[in-house]
Amino acid sequence: MAENQRIVLAARPQGMPDESHLKLESAPMPEPADGQVLLRTIYLSLDPYMRGRMSAAKSYAQSVEVGSVMEGGTVCEVVESHSPDWQAGDLALAHTGWQAYAAVNPKGLKRLNPDDAPISTAVGVLGMPGFTAYVGMVEHGRPQKGETVVVSAASGAVGQVVGQLAQHWGCRAVGVAGGPDKCRFVTESMGFDACVDHRSPTFEQDLAAACPNGVDIYWENVGGKVQAAVLPLLNEFARIPVCGLIAHYNETGAPDGPDKLSGFMRHILTKRLTVRGFIQFDHADRRGEFFKTVAPLVKSGELKYRNDVVQGLENAVSAFQGLLTGKNFGKLLVQVGDDPTQ
Amino acid sequence: MAENQRIVLAARPQGMPDESHLKLESAPMPEPADGQVLLRTIYLSLDPYMRGRMSAAKSYAQSVEVGSVMEGGTVCEVVESHSPDWQAGDLALAHTGWQAYAAVNPKGLKRLNPDDAPISTAVGVLGMPGFTAYVGMVEHGRPQKGETVVVSAASGAVGQVVGQLAQHWGCRAVGVAGGPDKCRFVTESMGFDACVDHRSPTFEQDLAAACPNGVDIYWENVGGKVQAAVLPLLNEFARIPVCGLIAHYNETGAPDGPDKLSGFMRHILTKRLTVRGFIQFDHADRRGEFFKTVAPLVKSGELKYRNDVVQGLENAVSAFQGLLTGKNFGKLLVQVGDDPTQ
Repeated sequence: MAENQRIVLAARPQGMPDESHLKLESAPMPEPADGQVLLRTIYLSLDPYMRGRMSAAKSYAQSVEVGSVMEGGTVCEVVESHSPDWQAGDLALAHTGWQAYAAVNPKGLKRLNPDDAPISTAVGVLGMPGFTAYVGMVEHGRPQKGETVVVSAASGAVGQVVGQLAQHWGCRAVGVAGGPDKCRFVTESMGFDACVDHRSPTFEQDLAAACPNGVDIYWENVGGKVQAAVLPLLNEFARIPVCGLIAHYNETGAPDGPDKLSGFMRHILTKRLTVRGFIQFDHADRRGEFFKTVAPLVKSGELKYRNDVVQGLENAVSAFQGLLTGKNFGKLLVQVGDDPTQ
Repeated sequence: MAENQRIVLAARPQGMPDESHLKLESAPMPEPADGQVLLRTIYLSLDPYMRGRMSAAKSYAQSVEVGSVMEGGTVCEVVESHSPDWQAGDLALAHTGWQAYAAVNPKGLKRLNPDDAPISTAVGVLGMPGFTAYVGMVEHGRPQKGETVVVSAASGAVGQVVGQLAQHWGCRAVGVAGGPDKCRFVTESMGFDACVDHRSPTFEQDLAAACPNGVDIYWENVGGKVQAAVLPLLNEFARIPVCGLIAHYNETGAPDGPDKLSGFMRHILTKRLTVRGFIQFDHADRRGEFFKTVAPLVKSGELKYRNDVVQGLENAVSAFQGLLTGKNFGKLLVQVGDDPTQ
């Protein structure tokens, strides 16, 4: 226990980040001050929003400073406690970032009980991605029985939950994913009504065929050509909760033309669409309701999920690159240290 | 009274419509059947939505058939009645289109009393354009005291009402209009807090200077470069009611690049914007409430308006071209026949 391992933002990436921007380094083991706890990272959650934090562009949250540890949600074990509320061996949801150890004030920690659910779900289906799916649907998607919901990035951490919740509420769930393996997973393992491969040369026709009654909710995780294929299928009064735009995160300027913005605006006007961006943390007041609704569905097995676990902090950068190019398969986690519950 | 004069859609325009698409022709005087009334057109309302009706593209309303009279709202006088409810000399709001006379079933007519308000207001500030402004603001803009509202096409039929209603509800109203004359009119005659000329080489800076606290509501009437200048000024949780896109109505395909769509989507996501298309007729249940709210403001003079009246049906096509290129100045009307109240 002599050294900490951590990944710091060494430089702001233009385009795809790599090891020159995200540097693995050794650092002295952090020492918990009075009232603090020393945490050992078990799982680090990798999420698309992190690309935004690497950039200096103005956004909804502060950028990570160059030279600082990359931020991120983590599942941790308390290894040393100077706080009366925590003991060594306790498990917690934290936000300690891309590193093996951190000394933190325990105020922001959430205690985890492995008997309730596997601890990795705290950064997945029962954590931020699951809550994102839930709150985006109830606040912005507003599904009505019998409607058709198209979910982009359907095999990802958020998408897999969106489609299953849509079905739970009586909707037809149509996923969009990259490649036949992911599509099979989305229909066979996650139980979506259909899933369409956006890499297929017949993608647009396949999507139209999967949505015989048009599209009432388009869950936007990606942008780009998936959005373009959905637009003509949208029904009047359709809703587009804008959760992510992963196809565009590495863009360094406006892409080449033609300019598709005015066509998009026409769809909005003539079909009276509602397009709404949202971030889960604006809706923190619904977290309790989310947990009450979704935890039982997970426990009963009605709501399924898949984690994609990469071993070792040294593989975090390539795993994150894979996330931005659609290589992950389910919720992407890095296992940084042993999981004592397994 | 031997002949009717009318303008028919002779061909679907690609780009700007002209006399080859909108043909003035003589036709037999229509004869009212039993139960019908013969109407003489006093005012024909010219509105941007009519460009959409000339096109075969799928939209929220049916296209006008080639060979049919162009549709449009009208203020008419009953000249012959075969209905017990109407008498010659009665005045009515109708939808008889671009023609001097029409025989219609009176069921869809709304009786007008010239003592309540000038009859031309029935297709203007107290008619469809005024209602569009009202319902777009209360349903979609949702103005809060102290917010900043930017109104594109501010000197037009809808824009002039949007800004004044915004002020009535405690907001700062900033207009955008084409040329110094219109801008002066918007501030001096309509009383907006500021108005910015989109033809000025310093337009973007001028707009930013007029919105020191950012923009909370952007009333979208135009699209194009006005929208592009507003986007960086939008505050978090800003709303964009999409009422029209006049900069794009004559486009025959996607414009040249760069492609600004992904940049627009990023603003939506990171600022959690709500962009919502709407058409006033979806909200017909609020017409009574609109009239009760706005008619007294018009009567008292708090809410001002300006009509731009062109004389003669033979000038309707050039007036409509002017509407699409920003030449009108206030609510555009064609006076087709004598106004007996003047």
